[in-house]
Amino acid sequence: MILTVTLNAALDVTYETPPVSRDGVNRVTAVHRRAGGKGVNVARVLAALGEEVLVTGLAGGLTGQAVERDLEEAGLAHAFVRVAGETRTTLVVAEPGAHTLFNEPGPRVTADEFADFLRTYEALLGEARAVVLSGSLPPGPPADAYATLTAFARERGVPAIVDADGEPLRCAPAGRPAIVKPNAEELARAVPHGSPEEGAAALRDRGAGSVVVSLGAAGLLAVTEVGTFRARMPYAVEGNPTGAGDALVAGLALGLVSACPWPDRLRRAAALGAAAVAAPVAGAFDPGVYEAVHPLIEIV
Amino acid sequence: MILTVTLNAALDVTYETPPVSRDGVNRVTAVHRRAGGKGVNVARVLAALGEEVLVTGLAGGLTGQAVERDLEEAGLAHAFVRVAGETRTTLVVAEPGAHTLFNEPGPRVTADEFADFLRTYEALLGEARAVVLSGSLPPGPPADAYATLTAFARERGVPAIVDADGEPLRCAPAGRPAIVKPNAEELARAVPHGSPEEGAAALRDRGAGSVVVSLGAAGLLAVTEVGTFRARMPYAVEGNPTGAGDALVAGLALGLVSACPWPDRLRRAAALGAAAVAAPVAGAFDPGVYEAVHPLIEIV
Repeated sequence: MILTVTLNAALDVTYETPPVSRDGVNRVTAVHRRAGGKGVNVARVLAALGEEVLVTGLAGGLTGQAVERDLEEAGLAHAFVRVAGETRTTLVVAEPGAHTLFNEPGPRVTADEFADFLRTYEALLGEARAVVLSGSLPPGPPADAYATLTAFARERGVPAIVDADGEPLRCAPAGRPAIVKPNAEELARAVPHGSPEEGAAALRDRGAGSVVVSLGAAGLLAVTEVGTFRARMPYAVEGNPTGAGDALVAGLALGLVSACPWPDRLRRAAALGAAAVAAPVAGAFDPGVYEAVHPLIEIV
Repeated sequence: MILTVTLNAALDVTYETPPVSRDGVNRVTAVHRRAGGKGVNVARVLAALGEEVLVTGLAGGLTGQAVERDLEEAGLAHAFVRVAGETRTTLVVAEPGAHTLFNEPGPRVTADEFADFLRTYEALLGEARAVVLSGSLPPGPPADAYATLTAFARERGVPAIVDADGEPLRCAPAGRPAIVKPNAEELARAVPHGSPEEGAAALRDRGAGSVVVSLGAAGLLAVTEVGTFRARMPYAVEGNPTGAGDALVAGLALGLVSACPWPDRLRRAAALGAAAVAAPVAGAFDPGVYEAVHPLIEIV
């Protein structure tokens, strides 16, 4: 099983509305609710590819229950640790011509709650072939939480992928993850000077096994233990970039558990990212685009 | 006990945000969640005045559970009938200089669910001294639902107050409610021609015992079985008009169960409405303003 960790899970809510009247009363014509958070999106992609997955993380309150219920409806196994605070909601107000996002801060997680999570996580690692650590941390846990979780996994022989930003990304390499996956902007924040190649090399120097940098339409850069590779996209896929990074991470996780060579891993991961752009919601990908683009991706 | 009915209950959510970036990503700095719907607000005011109240209506999904939990935390007894749909959320995005409201449509209520409600309502009427029927109907029940609920109550000797708009207001008098409470705009929609006095008289002709029209800062107009009265406010109270009508209805309900004369009923109801304007959230009122304004209200 591949274990995905979402410490700051979310209920993703979309309001469809006519043009919004600011300072007025607006009728919501349709409401969509869906479990979210980057690790949840990764799990959806892996499950769609036939992989056994388990979603863990922290969930609280009735919003946490709504997240769990949506995962059950999607057939995704979960083992969240309960926290006293309320799981955050992320709201998209989708009016004609604009998608306005509102992000709740997420529940404050106590030291005891994080310790509870570590015990559960340790137990779940027993069955895991790889672990994916994705997304922001809720308020509370230390910035090096992903380094700690990665080190726990390593001790049990389980490789970890970290997809994070800011301080959690800067701290992550110390836990010696198999792969760190920033996009170009995240990498530039973590290593402020130099090219993407130099930034990736710096994260490897600090402990990351490999670093895969997503460059949007320009493809991927992978700086690995066996050399540097680039995935070049045959054409730009138009659509919704939200969740493309999560599909890419799902592809990298598959590469870890199938132990195929880096060029093949990278081609599959890049194809999944492109196929996710073609799908309307995060956590989904377009199988037709995946099949079509996969053989055309050039690895150099 | 006074029974308040909220067929379209809501979870009122407020997002405090910095100035909103349309089509951008916005951080929510604080989230407030509170059980809402007009009948819930009426019950809060009555409970604050020491009256025994029971909140009923329809509730569904985890949002319905959140409404029930908030009522329990506020010490308000409730007996909602469960429906399969999800109770609506009303969201206020409160940024500097603007309060933008988003209203979800509410769950569609089936005929069976409404029949379930009628059975529960009938049982609850056994203990009720008055019933308050407030707010919009969810999609599903017939437009004359309030007339039906009023007639049920009348058969059991329980007087009803109806606070509604549109078709439910137009249909309400047929059930012979003790009091109908529109504001001036609602009355003008229900009886398009003539003065407020003529509109109120028309609703009495159709079956309403008394009609109390809220005129904002201009006070109240009551056309009753014992004559016509006006409540004149001594000064304009500045603040938040949301919930003022609900506090007024609470005052009218108190008048029904204490059987005090109309001028006294009206003075108390008008004072509660003004005191609600001085409070920051619907369902609350400022006791100091209530005490101060009450003796100064002129009834003519």
